[in-house]
Amino acid sequence: MNQTAIARSWVEHANGHSDFPLQNLPLGIFSRPDEARRCGVAIGDAILDLEAVLAAGLFDGEAKAAVEATRGGALNAYFALGSKARVALRERLLALLGEHSEHQDVLQAALYQASECQLHLPAKVGDYTDFYVGINHANNVGKLFRPDNPLLPNYKYVPIAYHGRASTLRPSGTDVRRPKGQTLPAGQSEPTFGPCARLDYELELGIWIGQGNAMGDSIAIGDAAEHVAGYCLLNDWSARDIQAWEYQPLGPFLSKSFITSLSPWVVTAEALAPFRCAQPARPEGDPQPLSYLQDKRDQANGAFDIELEVLLITERMREQGLPAHRLTLSNSLSMYWTVAQMVAHHSVNGCQLQPGDLFGSGTLSGAKPGSYGSLLEITEGGKQPIELASGEVRKFLEDGDEIILRARCHREGVASIGFGECRGTIIAAN
Amino acid sequence: MNQTAIARSWVEHANGHSDFPLQNLPLGIFSRPDEARRCGVAIGDAILDLEAVLAAGLFDGEAKAAVEATRGGALNAYFALGSKARVALRERLLALLGEHSEHQDVLQAALYQASECQLHLPAKVGDYTDFYVGINHANNVGKLFRPDNPLLPNYKYVPIAYHGRASTLRPSGTDVRRPKGQTLPAGQSEPTFGPCARLDYELELGIWIGQGNAMGDSIAIGDAAEHVAGYCLLNDWSARDIQAWEYQPLGPFLSKSFITSLSPWVVTAEALAPFRCAQPARPEGDPQPLSYLQDKRDQANGAFDIELEVLLITERMREQGLPAHRLTLSNSLSMYWTVAQMVAHHSVNGCQLQPGDLFGSGTLSGAKPGSYGSLLEITEGGKQPIELASGEVRKFLEDGDEIILRARCHREGVASIGFGECRGTIIAAN
Repeated sequence: MNQTAIARSWVEHANGHSDFPLQNLPLGIFSRPDEARRCGVAIGDAILDLEAVLAAGLFDGEAKAAVEATRGGALNAYFALGSKARVALRERLLALLGEHSEHQDVLQAALYQASECQLHLPAKVGDYTDFYVGINHANNVGKLFRPDNPLLPNYKYVPIAYHGRASTLRPSGTDVRRPKGQTLPAGQSEPTFGPCARLDYELELGIWIGQGNAMGDSIAIGDAAEHVAGYCLLNDWSARDIQAWEYQPLGPFLSKSFITSLSPWVVTAEALAPFRCAQPARPEGDPQPLSYLQDKRDQANGAFDIELEVLLITERMREQGLPAHRLTLSNSLSMYWTVAQMVAHHSVNGCQLQPGDLFGSGTLSGAKPGSYGSLLEITEGGKQPIELASGEVRKFLEDGDEIILRARCHREGVASIGFGECRGTIIAAN
Repeated sequence: MNQTAIARSWVEHANGHSDFPLQNLPLGIFSRPDEARRCGVAIGDAILDLEAVLAAGLFDGEAKAAVEATRGGALNAYFALGSKARVALRERLLALLGEHSEHQDVLQAALYQASECQLHLPAKVGDYTDFYVGINHANNVGKLFRPDNPLLPNYKYVPIAYHGRASTLRPSGTDVRRPKGQTLPAGQSEPTFGPCARLDYELELGIWIGQGNAMGDSIAIGDAAEHVAGYCLLNDWSARDIQAWEYQPLGPFLSKSFITSLSPWVVTAEALAPFRCAQPARPEGDPQPLSYLQDKRDQANGAFDIELEVLLITERMREQGLPAHRLTLSNSLSMYWTVAQMVAHHSVNGCQLQPGDLFGSGTLSGAKPGSYGSLLEITEGGKQPIELASGEVRKFLEDGDEIILRARCHREGVASIGFGECRGTIIAAN
């Protein structure tokens, strides 16, 4: 296949180096000033208003039912429909937005500049679960505490996860208020209270759950794909000093629950299909997964090749007009467990998953410097500060710092797609 | 005050040894066969249908607004109104259900036998947080792992908690499907997969959150009471073998998320007011709480004297007509932190609490045998089986076993109140 075979859109911007070419078509929830929230699809630098297209009579059959399910300002009911409705809608959108579309005039009226719209969380999250499947992150963090034995004995058997806080999930662009809390100063035996001094980001993929399961039932790994509605970027902001003092014996709590940021577009399995690949081979000596976590098709094609990037802009860099500083260039191939394994594990005890539940992957660090997905790893817990072009140094995040997560998929002969950004700026503690 | 001073209801059953005398008046969500869910108040062995009373025109002003907010089969909007509406409704119900009520004929038509109604969860839970404030439980469990140093260094500074699973909260009476999962057999280095073999209960109080806070704001300890809508019983069913293998480093996950049971009636702060007491004195040498956790009024009157009980009935005991076996007789005075301290701590980092969020207290064990709130403690992790009158023994729960939690408040000269039961029967793994 050569470049000329890549289908084009009549929305010209989508044919350039956009995150949202015709091949992506992620849904999201947007609003225009003083208007209600509704569902749109990202195309180039624009958003196509699906309710307006529905009103114009351009959907029928399953695609129409799919768009009807997006009403009400949240995609939960649409997620519940599963892949058949999603694929039908995608097929119709490919025709409507493709360069040979017969409806350009009508559609043009339903197209808005994305920069003039506000993006919201795409669904109302029932439960949010944060996994820990980035093995390099687990290794890097483990080394800080247990240099000789960084990975705990369960890591290569159990897709480790914990329940996160759903009420403080927010869309990209929401400011991050520096949290206050208890911390134990080095060398002290009594904690003090105050603003977090070791504020960090964590680069993660988010996974939106589609069809759910009844309490008491499990989702077989071979059926897991049907239960995934799509993907986004997730910044699991972390207060390292609060975390270190609070997390024993029940895990992270206030160190994470002040905010978690999400990119607002739901990138589908269909858009990501060209970037699927085999699960990276387990290193020699690693145990085979238990049978409920094994599926040949998943091992052959259940991983993703997604390039992940984190950028930092400080207030001074912004003032000086300096370009963003790249903190991380990583890849989703660092996931030790696939999304299907995560779904199968989460439900194996009968835990009910519901449409609009959200998983985080855990921090997706690479194995080498330059690819670490948190400042904790990059600065070795603050011991190796980063130097910036502005002359500033950073051990952890300062007020005014902005973190930008990006994701992009490349493969020879197919259109590159991206996820859109997940941004957040630190503001001072109250 | 003597017994004759205790106000009586014209609903005769409420004047006997009922959990629900006139002084209690907890709200809940109930339904009759083939009818919609609606709000009722428990009185004796009956439920008064508040929508029917509203339709009869017997509420006005704030009490009317309160009942209107209970519509739709969940109490979230009612919880959001706060204490003023709750107190107004209570005052009106005291008059309507008191022995001098002028509306007995009308009300009688809105009164149903509780045994003919189904009880549901009282609210749609956004987030569920499980605390660990039962210090005896923390001590007893800590001893199993660290005999010389059972309490971790943070325990007396931090009201320890973790995020729980909201999707599998269920009302009393819901069967408990034995979960399956990974466990590490003793002496082995590789896990196996199968049904949980160490299934346990945990005796907890549940706390319903009323008014919420905006993300980024904190709730001062002195304002915490306004953010609590009421109380219930909570059984934090636990798979000890799954928990032991999965919980490092991020805390319990699948060992808890298969189901959590709640008693369905929301017992209010007003009903519990006579049973408030001073926070038990901190033992000599314990640190003073950090200032955000200190409030004189809370220390003087922020604890509860609630007697807590756990009963076990096995299938054989049921067949033989044997009475239930009491596993636990405990008290909420074993809470090291008050509910106000839990609210202040949870929000101190800016975490948003929302109406209908739920807290669990953590297991409320007493200090001595007979008062332990889990089989893990009673049988010392299975080493000291319990003998039952049926000739059976129990290390952990077997299929067919039913666990019943009860709570009751007593004080000389005031009416005793109870919480109603929280029941659950174990059924075999799928």
